[in-house]
Amino acid sequence: MNIKGEPWQAIWLETSGNSFGVIDQNELPHLLKTRSIKTCDEAVKAIKTMVVRGAPLIGVTGAYGLMLALKVDQSNSSLEQAYKALLATRPTAINLLWALDRVRSKVEHLPLSKRVEVARQEAQLIALEDIKACESIGNHGLTLFKKLQAFKDKKGLAGPLNILTHCNAGWLATVDWGTALAPIYKAHREGMKIHVWVDETRPRNQGSSLTAFELAAEGIPHTVIVDNAGGHLMQHGKVDAVIVGSDRTTSKGDVCNKIGTYLKALAAFDNKIPFYVAIPMSTIDWEISDGLDSIPIEIRSEEEVTHIKGLSNKDDGLLKIETVQLAPSGCKGFNPAFDVTPSRLVTRIITEYGSSKPNKEDLMSLLT
Amino acid sequence: MNIKGEPWQAIWLETSGNSFGVIDQNELPHLLKTRSIKTCDEAVKAIKTMVVRGAPLIGVTGAYGLMLALKVDQSNSSLEQAYKALLATRPTAINLLWALDRVRSKVEHLPLSKRVEVARQEAQLIALEDIKACESIGNHGLTLFKKLQAFKDKKGLAGPLNILTHCNAGWLATVDWGTALAPIYKAHREGMKIHVWVDETRPRNQGSSLTAFELAAEGIPHTVIVDNAGGHLMQHGKVDAVIVGSDRTTSKGDVCNKIGTYLKALAAFDNKIPFYVAIPMSTIDWEISDGLDSIPIEIRSEEEVTHIKGLSNKDDGLLKIETVQLAPSGCKGFNPAFDVTPSRLVTRIITEYGSSKPNKEDLMSLLT
Repeated sequence: MNIKGEPWQAIWLETSGNSFGVIDQNELPHLLKTRSIKTCDEAVKAIKTMVVRGAPLIGVTGAYGLMLALKVDQSNSSLEQAYKALLATRPTAINLLWALDRVRSKVEHLPLSKRVEVARQEAQLIALEDIKACESIGNHGLTLFKKLQAFKDKKGLAGPLNILTHCNAGWLATVDWGTALAPIYKAHREGMKIHVWVDETRPRNQGSSLTAFELAAEGIPHTVIVDNAGGHLMQHGKVDAVIVGSDRTTSKGDVCNKIGTYLKALAAFDNKIPFYVAIPMSTIDWEISDGLDSIPIEIRSEEEVTHIKGLSNKDDGLLKIETVQLAPSGCKGFNPAFDVTPSRLVTRIITEYGSSKPNKEDLMSLLT
Repeated sequence: MNIKGEPWQAIWLETSGNSFGVIDQNELPHLLKTRSIKTCDEAVKAIKTMVVRGAPLIGVTGAYGLMLALKVDQSNSSLEQAYKALLATRPTAINLLWALDRVRSKVEHLPLSKRVEVARQEAQLIALEDIKACESIGNHGLTLFKKLQAFKDKKGLAGPLNILTHCNAGWLATVDWGTALAPIYKAHREGMKIHVWVDETRPRNQGSSLTAFELAAEGIPHTVIVDNAGGHLMQHGKVDAVIVGSDRTTSKGDVCNKIGTYLKALAAFDNKIPFYVAIPMSTIDWEISDGLDSIPIEIRSEEEVTHIKGLSNKDDGLLKIETVQLAPSGCKGFNPAFDVTPSRLVTRIITEYGSSKPNKEDLMSLLT
């Protein structure tokens, strides 16, 4: 997607082929900085410290990370060590496992001399396929948005289509297009009038930093709200649909996504508003049916709750990101990073193969 | 309640009788500063800028504010002007109207010379009655907590009673004891094992600043969470009850409270967890039945969404509160301060007269 009219992606193989570039998402929305990742250790660190985040982007980063490990040492033990280190970075997202498995299975039976090149090709292929999948999610989501707009027109309701989204499932969470934001980009490029309510998404504020940045960069009207406000907006007819991504979706359609997603799903259900989940098929964990008990939920640092970072408002002319303390000194915090939305609250799951109701039979039928 | 073992209240008549003191709640939890309010204009400003906040405390502040206006000019026009200025500060809370009406009706038919003294007495009486009402709410809430604990014990569930609260409805929102926190104080002082999940309550973070401050000052175990986390905790059996205050409750039990309350009520309902609302009777608006359409919702500045303030982490040894910018420059925000929780999601309303189901008949029967 665009930043100031220039096309960008969230990750790219650098021209040497021996490193890859990413946008440092910890600096957004205030500073646009790129980083060159040259070793597997750097890739591990980039995922852990959330320089990159978002389930599909983590998967691609992991794939490139394996390639970087093999560049130094092509042995099986090197491969295993890198695989484990990368997988341990974030426990909830399933794409990381899927992408690492894909690269490993491609190279583990090859002679050592061919491994780097094949790993590079496979990682590039995963990235390319991700772009295609996301664009396709965009098209399938657009079909649903058009139906909503037609319904609104029929009822004589004025104004743009109001879409609420939580966290960031845009191009910064993938390679390009995004998942939940892809239909929004498609709709905007087709000339549909669309307005996005952006949940700030505490504690890390991926909404007010990343989603707001993306939408502004593409010129799509949007308004940031605190996570508490969405239910009120829905009660008052200000939201036509909710759309979110997912880090892992079970076979029966339970959706594990950024903490707070469940609350928005409850509010959408209570107000008879469609709740859509946009995912590439690679985020479905077919091994698991019930999401509440089976998906490991990452518990992150309590400092993310008790502190927050933002742009310092100092008048000294320097752009400076600063951390301020919100809670009293010594205050305990608890910080689960994801929650599970039961499939009963999900209207449709939008994939690159089309959209379906959230149940195993319908999800599998998309693949046939 | 206590701060470092010393008893405090949120508002007090100063010894001269010609001014009143408050804690500056904008400086909490990092700095404990008091302010002396000497004029009606200062009272108006203190409410507007949220030096004081919380429906009952705003009511008492308004009452003292009228007294200060009469000190300067005892005429009816002075009374009316002060009444209007104070009432216009916050549109949602009903106690403010109630307290202003109470003082005005006491003095408006009196000779000018008696007005200041009677206004002072009435304001003091409102404050004293508020303390008594809150303590009584605490006792009635404690009865419910004991039932929950007995139920937990019977099921063989270990650990403390886990109570989730949103915003601050503690002694800082009233004169003493608080509403939603009163039963928690009572339980703690009776030796019950209790732990409080404190919603940070964006955008103004009254939870992580004021509620966490109060609970720490009284020595009650608590953990701050982001507003997104409560649903997940409820899904996993970590919450035994939710208790909140209310700025205005309709005759049928619809509850207008801090933005985001509705989302927690939905989650409590979905997980079969009791959702209690603790209020003095003066916050019931008997004129209104349906809360969704009839209660004016205050829309506050978008800066509260796009920016946040906290304690600067600078290493220069100075305690300094700083504002940082969260969203991209130029980003729009929308900031409704309250939402309405329909009575169907409320388990019981706890008042100074006892607790009742959320409907007009039962609420009125408390008064007889």
